[in-house]
Amino acid sequence: MAEERGRRPGSPQTRDSILEAAVASFTAQGYAQTTIRGVAREAGVDPALVMHFFGSKERLFEACVIWPFDPEERMAAVTAGGLDSAGEQVVRLFVDTWDERDGRNPIVALMRTAMSQESSEHLLRDFLHTRLLMPLVTALELDHAELRAGLVASQLLGLGAARYILRFDSLAGLSADEAVACVAPAVQRYLSDPIPTAVT
Amino acid sequence: MAEERGRRPGSPQTRDSILEAAVASFTAQGYAQTTIRGVAREAGVDPALVMHFFGSKERLFEACVIWPFDPEERMAAVTAGGLDSAGEQVVRLFVDTWDERDGRNPIVALMRTAMSQESSEHLLRDFLHTRLLMPLVTALELDHAELRAGLVASQLLGLGAARYILRFDSLAGLSADEAVACVAPAVQRYLSDPIPTAVT
Repeated sequence: MAEERGRRPGSPQTRDSILEAAVASFTAQGYAQTTIRGVAREAGVDPALVMHFFGSKERLFEACVIWPFDPEERMAAVTAGGLDSAGEQVVRLFVDTWDERDGRNPIVALMRTAMSQESSEHLLRDFLHTRLLMPLVTALELDHAELRAGLVASQLLGLGAARYILRFDSLAGLSADEAVACVAPAVQRYLSDPIPTAVT
Repeated sequence: MAEERGRRPGSPQTRDSILEAAVASFTAQGYAQTTIRGVAREAGVDPALVMHFFGSKERLFEACVIWPFDPEERMAAVTAGGLDSAGEQVVRLFVDTWDERDGRNPIVALMRTAMSQESSEHLLRDFLHTRLLMPLVTALELDHAELRAGLVASQLLGLGAARYILRFDSLAGLSADEAVACVAPAVQRYLSDPIPTAVT
């Protein structure tokens, strides 16, 4: 990104206010219906200032979906207990993160947007695959690393969709501990079980 | 729906052309960016005719997502082999249906739309829950019917998202048989395994 010398960048608080308004809009209204103008209005700033900080709606969106935890750091914690507890640990990381802000957080905004906006698909796929799950299966030295990462991603994505977006009563009503207890065994088997001979 | 006597309804072929154009638009562009005008143009008809048949964009969307199979009939086939094969059968039903039209089918359009458009969430949730999975778990006389249905839904939704929308290479590259072999055991356990004591 080119540095723009001599221009006053505005305060970090202003940038945070814009980000907060943008997360709220992307989450509630989705990508297509979010506008720079609407975000600026909610944040109480001029639209030109939003453009100054972020340059475009797509870049604004990317700035919103900074993961609420550091993937390298948290994946190290997930793998610290070894393979036998990795399934439960990774499901707990997701459920705790999702629950933290009552589902109205950047991950849900990213899921909603990535599912409806092809240009955003790579953000979610790359985050899950490249930054979270490939490091996980690689650290655990598992065979069929890519496939295991994809299968774990499928269950985590589905849990997010069913519990936080479509809100199936039976899943939305579970506590975090209950949700982890139900789903962790499936994720653990994607990590631990032999890959079916049909595929190998 | 009020009957409108005396008005000529147009041919069924015209209605089908509109539906086909609408499915293509909802799938490629999503709900927010699909317009009655655009669908009419693709179908080569006047926008007023689209309104005559469907009344609103939401109703047009609902007409598009008629499931490509009869849920009662297919669920009977899924349960015919008993509990032990139900997991594989239900995953195969979804994968075959998704693969049939190379992912560009109404289910993918519905998933994309339901994830981004709160007003459409109920369509997907009700279809999966009420018409497909509750009849499945009820026919199999399983305990914790709602929770099992929700857990199966989570894995099916996640497979759809990861293989057909986000297109993780490792999952998108599997044949239908391979995908079923990988995911069916997880779905089968959601049907067969005891529900964790943390929840019961």
